[in-house]
Amino acid sequence: MSASKSPLVMIPGPTELDASVLEALGEPSMAHADPRLIEHFGRSLELMRDVFQCKAGQPLILTASGTIGWDVIAANLVEPGQRALVVTNGYFGDRFRDCLEAYGVATTALTSQPGTAPTVDEITAALSAAGSSHFSLVTLTHVDTSSGVLTDIKACAAAIRAAQPNALIAVDGVCSIGGEELRMDEWGVDVAFTASQKAIGCPAGLALMVLGERAMAAFNDRVARKVPVTGWYASLANWLPIMKAYEARQPSYFATPAVNLIVALHKALDNLVGFPGGLSALFARQVLASDAFKAGIAAMGLTLVPKTHASAAHLLSAIRFPQGVGAGDLVPKVRARGAVITGGLLAPIKTEYFRVGHMGVSALQASRDDLLVTLRAIEGALIELGVAGVTAGAAEAAFNSVLRK
Amino acid sequence: MSASKSPLVMIPGPTELDASVLEALGEPSMAHADPRLIEHFGRSLELMRDVFQCKAGQPLILTASGTIGWDVIAANLVEPGQRALVVTNGYFGDRFRDCLEAYGVATTALTSQPGTAPTVDEITAALSAAGSSHFSLVTLTHVDTSSGVLTDIKACAAAIRAAQPNALIAVDGVCSIGGEELRMDEWGVDVAFTASQKAIGCPAGLALMVLGERAMAAFNDRVARKVPVTGWYASLANWLPIMKAYEARQPSYFATPAVNLIVALHKALDNLVGFPGGLSALFARQVLASDAFKAGIAAMGLTLVPKTHASAAHLLSAIRFPQGVGAGDLVPKVRARGAVITGGLLAPIKTEYFRVGHMGVSALQASRDDLLVTLRAIEGALIELGVAGVTAGAAEAAFNSVLRK
Repeated sequence: MSASKSPLVMIPGPTELDASVLEALGEPSMAHADPRLIEHFGRSLELMRDVFQCKAGQPLILTASGTIGWDVIAANLVEPGQRALVVTNGYFGDRFRDCLEAYGVATTALTSQPGTAPTVDEITAALSAAGSSHFSLVTLTHVDTSSGVLTDIKACAAAIRAAQPNALIAVDGVCSIGGEELRMDEWGVDVAFTASQKAIGCPAGLALMVLGERAMAAFNDRVARKVPVTGWYASLANWLPIMKAYEARQPSYFATPAVNLIVALHKALDNLVGFPGGLSALFARQVLASDAFKAGIAAMGLTLVPKTHASAAHLLSAIRFPQGVGAGDLVPKVRARGAVITGGLLAPIKTEYFRVGHMGVSALQASRDDLLVTLRAIEGALIELGVAGVTAGAAEAAFNSVLRK
Repeated sequence: MSASKSPLVMIPGPTELDASVLEALGEPSMAHADPRLIEHFGRSLELMRDVFQCKAGQPLILTASGTIGWDVIAANLVEPGQRALVVTNGYFGDRFRDCLEAYGVATTALTSQPGTAPTVDEITAALSAAGSSHFSLVTLTHVDTSSGVLTDIKACAAAIRAAQPNALIAVDGVCSIGGEELRMDEWGVDVAFTASQKAIGCPAGLALMVLGERAMAAFNDRVARKVPVTGWYASLANWLPIMKAYEARQPSYFATPAVNLIVALHKALDNLVGFPGGLSALFARQVLASDAFKAGIAAMGLTLVPKTHASAAHLLSAIRFPQGVGAGDLVPKVRARGAVITGGLLAPIKTEYFRVGHMGVSALQASRDDLLVTLRAIEGALIELGVAGVTAGAAEAAFNSVLRK
């Protein structure tokens, strides 16, 4: 199938892929101990320190969906019976909590209304209300992929550190890292992870995690105290020697990695780090693309699920349907116009909104018109559906006016 | 990089890939809820029932290395404190045991000398010695990838069922399923799994499992008794609804699958099931290719790690080094001649042997000369190393004489 026949993938991951990444994916088969694969793997680990902004961190690449990041944290960095505060801004924070509970962690959830994230004051209050009882772990979801809500990790992490200095701070960065800025070192994040198919720009199938020095110290302390880890595939003790070996460019074996995906990941990370002007320019470009896309959405008279501009993620938009329109109406008509978008996911408002991803090459490459194609497709579909107040061309004009600023 | 420049991958997985599978892998990005992906996923599940020979089984495709198969069994099909007999024919049986222990299962290992598998009599004795104490699970490794030892699953499963009718029988089929015959229904295997990069003929990154009716009943009983599962990514409760949805061609979400690998898997399974003459012809062809390859090895005066012909796997050969030769000598010289092979893995004899994979397209496609190239490369390397008794052309003649029979 040629690329031109396939509709644009404009969901919040998987994303459109750069041709260089697809080409890397399709390289001939290679042994998992092949020196070329070891170099791809080792170099990818090194590049992750730049992307996660964690200079002395321990990077891990696991062959799995990003979901396994929750398991790795729940199984290794907190112990059964210990307490975790789960700060949740939507569906994925709730699932992180379910995962922690499945490992016997005693969780307290700090929830928020759909379209919002818990505030810094609420976090401080929750940690103080705990009084003398200690939280071993506090989890944050950088971007809730289900609702497009962005959490202010810098402010939250500072508040957590102030209130409970010994708690590890874990960030689910699945729909953020590589696209939204996350400064692990500077902001005091102890562990963060993402999946390959979001802002990293690689096909799905790899989970990427970086453990900061405090997280590694906590794990090493657990090992010294001989507190067992329940699990095998998500057990850090099995993976850490492998990652150290790959980075030292030595063969090693615990489980066969997804060889072709590792080759593609290396290329995707090279593309990210090699973005003209560096990662800060990349993050700024993602913000600009998001602002332009959201201006186009506003020009159709549509509103976002996130309640404020500051709490709206930059890699996707969660957009409320106009009156009388549902996913079954809109999504197929947009697809017929060349762009795949998706419906809602957050239970209380699932049928009230749809989601569009605008990350990676679709947002970053000036030569691509993916965002415009998508805006035009949504606009055309809404006009076909007879939605009042949608004017052909208005979205594109609004989009362009932001980009030209 | 063009295929012609890359040396042949002749290790026991990953393998050489059919061009059609690589092409499928490189298809443009696709959403995980795209109807095309749902069809690829659903059809792959259906085809797995044929490949695993389990008509009423519940197939699962997880985005992970095959290793996670141990976790799924250990976390879901046996309970902490219950007993498991681990019948181990090498490295991978030992690791299966480690995984079970990590989930709190009380294991008993039935081990064997390198190059052998426990006998049916030994298994019966071990199960009877347990007396009234019940094993909930007995695990078998079909092929130990570390030593090339094949276990007679049919005979072992019959003995287990006779001695302990209520025990679930689990087969690690990572280096067998799709190449060695495994008849789950007929032989009474309750759960079996493999990885995508071995005889299935797909790149690495997917774990494939089929749960037979007894395994599903045991799991459902556990759910009814509300016995919790420790873990999230390896928890059957999370995956089963997803697999049922994909098979019903409905979108569903727990974790984003490795989309491109699923497309490749569908093609690989189609190729397997569509082998001229069917799967029985495919298995026979794998045996013939193995016999021919091993004849070539014997013609160089080399012997195998497995002690008997019947206990030698058909998808790889574990070959003892001639006196004075080690992996550091042989492997690079063989690679320079166009074939990637690998060293030993089983601790007690790790430095004494090397391994060659001869499965999938390398063994099945008459148009490919991968096995001959590999034999010639080994022969040439041994002659260069001055090994006595190796005659140029002898391996090829022996190989051809078997194939021509």
